[in-house]
Amino acid sequence: MTDLFRHRMDRAVVQAAEAGLTGLLVTPGPDLTYFTGYRPTAITERITMLVLDADHDPHLIVPILERPDAERAAGAGAVTITDWADGTDPFASAARLLDPKGRYAVSDNAWALHLLGLQEALPGSAYTSMTGSLPMLRAVKDDDEVARLAAAGAAADAAYEQIVGVRFAGRTEHEIGTNLAVLLREHGHSQVDFTVVGSGPNGANPHHEMGERVIAEGDMVVLDFGGLKDGYGSDTTRTVHVGEPTVQEREVFEIVREAQQAAFEAVRPGVACEQIDRVARDVITRAGYGEFFIHRTGHGIGLTTHEPPYLVAGERRPLVPGMCFSIEPGIYLPGRFGVRIEDIVTVTADGGRRLNNTSRELRIVA
Amino acid sequence: MTDLFRHRMDRAVVQAAEAGLTGLLVTPGPDLTYFTGYRPTAITERITMLVLDADHDPHLIVPILERPDAERAAGAGAVTITDWADGTDPFASAARLLDPKGRYAVSDNAWALHLLGLQEALPGSAYTSMTGSLPMLRAVKDDDEVARLAAAGAAADAAYEQIVGVRFAGRTEHEIGTNLAVLLREHGHSQVDFTVVGSGPNGANPHHEMGERVIAEGDMVVLDFGGLKDGYGSDTTRTVHVGEPTVQEREVFEIVREAQQAAFEAVRPGVACEQIDRVARDVITRAGYGEFFIHRTGHGIGLTTHEPPYLVAGERRPLVPGMCFSIEPGIYLPGRFGVRIEDIVTVTADGGRRLNNTSRELRIVA
Repeated sequence: MTDLFRHRMDRAVVQAAEAGLTGLLVTPGPDLTYFTGYRPTAITERITMLVLDADHDPHLIVPILERPDAERAAGAGAVTITDWADGTDPFASAARLLDPKGRYAVSDNAWALHLLGLQEALPGSAYTSMTGSLPMLRAVKDDDEVARLAAAGAAADAAYEQIVGVRFAGRTEHEIGTNLAVLLREHGHSQVDFTVVGSGPNGANPHHEMGERVIAEGDMVVLDFGGLKDGYGSDTTRTVHVGEPTVQEREVFEIVREAQQAAFEAVRPGVACEQIDRVARDVITRAGYGEFFIHRTGHGIGLTTHEPPYLVAGERRPLVPGMCFSIEPGIYLPGRFGVRIEDIVTVTADGGRRLNNTSRELRIVA
Repeated sequence: MTDLFRHRMDRAVVQAAEAGLTGLLVTPGPDLTYFTGYRPTAITERITMLVLDADHDPHLIVPILERPDAERAAGAGAVTITDWADGTDPFASAARLLDPKGRYAVSDNAWALHLLGLQEALPGSAYTSMTGSLPMLRAVKDDDEVARLAAAGAAADAAYEQIVGVRFAGRTEHEIGTNLAVLLREHGHSQVDFTVVGSGPNGANPHHEMGERVIAEGDMVVLDFGGLKDGYGSDTTRTVHVGEPTVQEREVFEIVREAQQAAFEAVRPGVACEQIDRVARDVITRAGYGEFFIHRTGHGIGLTTHEPPYLVAGERRPLVPGMCFSIEPGIYLPGRFGVRIEDIVTVTADGGRRLNNTSRELRIVA
């Protein structure tokens, strides 16, 4: 494992240099997990930061009382650990490891408190976001990572196959969502991040989680669920219908399905990320529902369920084999219903491969 | 509720002006909950930000797909909601609400990604951390908040009284911690943030959570547990002993108990925060264990379990009635055992009142 972490850190330093940066400042969360395997118990006001640059060995700065935890991290052998104590200035300690005129990429989710402390301690230094300067740092997954994402996807698929067998009509969204969370855990998820159950008009709010609404015959129901299994994410959406759909419900569903299929078929190395969004959006727009597709088509997935690459207008970087992301177009008709279909897809040498493999047909539930 | 949120926002704008600031930029987390009651489902790369200043009504900027959630927040009536869509530049939208030469306090946990975006969009603007510039913004609790913290403390006390009745010897730390988490939920906690069970040498690591170590007769065991009940935090530590302690174990315990009692008795309005730390530290240092008390004496608590005021050397601000914080000195003997005793205390008109009220004597467990 030490070699894996060392390799990732070395590659990042090279990428930073190519981007005109002195180095990287990595804080707790997926970036730090990626480089060191270290996950502090909590992310708090006490700064923990990994400093990567070409001139020094990797240094991990930690609060002294978390030092024993840091020393037990999988990648601890690849870093030098430096601690700081309450009552001392952690930014002065950190600044000693930085180039006063350096330009650093900082983890997106680093606390403003910590960035401002560094900016003040080193007024000649400059900072840029990890996503802004090295957006594809964790975007290309190695084989082991793709295998873990595939396993998370298969677990989510298994949970879905079971949930469509339960009774929906007469039960609340919350009950269905709770069932689904239990199923995800039974299929090996260590963490469930979301179980959206958007029934009827609630389905028209893409981020509606679940509520006390009682699901009824005739409802369209959006199920969007995911979390982490073995450290890697799942994120799947299927839209089901309680009893027979109306003609318009089926029409809207088929437009979304066609958009999702077209976007999937457009995946291959070299295609711009925004092109996948455009393909999905064109299908929906041509069908007259463009104004009701109110979000981007997809996002990367890995150690988190939301990360680069983003499939969104303006993202012109190309797809690369090993990238993994969601393709999830939707149509949301306010006050009526919503439809979304989402799979995780990985880019292969000559196309794409879905990591979710349950049917994308409109499933009728009871 | 709208009036409460409006009052808090108005007061913050006045405090910001007194601190020489144009306004406040508040992002998801405890600050946003405090001002608006709004808790987005997840804190993500999509920016959500409340802009507070003297010249405009409060504006809450949200991703368009989270707008329905924001509109349902308890304080939605006190803010104007502005949305932005994927594919547009959220910082340009945000910048239109800011003074290009303004100086703003930013929530500590705002993402670096978002702060860097604002700094780039408005190069003439300046930023400072909420804790650095308005550290006591949420530190003085109103009566309703103190009542909720007291209820959370009472629930934690009830859980403790039950856990000391179970058998420790022969069971793993993990089993005891899991029991404790269940008890906290049974007593009304909606969220359990930590259940430290540090037995024997593990107790000497203040942030050891719990492991597979089997607890044995003769072990000192540090129990540090807390979470949220009704939105407000609990955080309590008691150290128990399995069977009869040795003379030195009892001696170390009594030093910590004396330090905690002395610090509690020093609480009254006008005393500097660091003075409470000094009182506790002096007791431990005089007894010859100063080098083994390796953290600050306490931290504030409210919507989070770690917030200002911090009872730490260098924090010269005075205690004010309504402040609520932990007093938690400890002694950690590497490779042997640890002792910590922690209560939440609120500052009253003429002293302090404990919100934890179980015995601080050394409790012998089976």
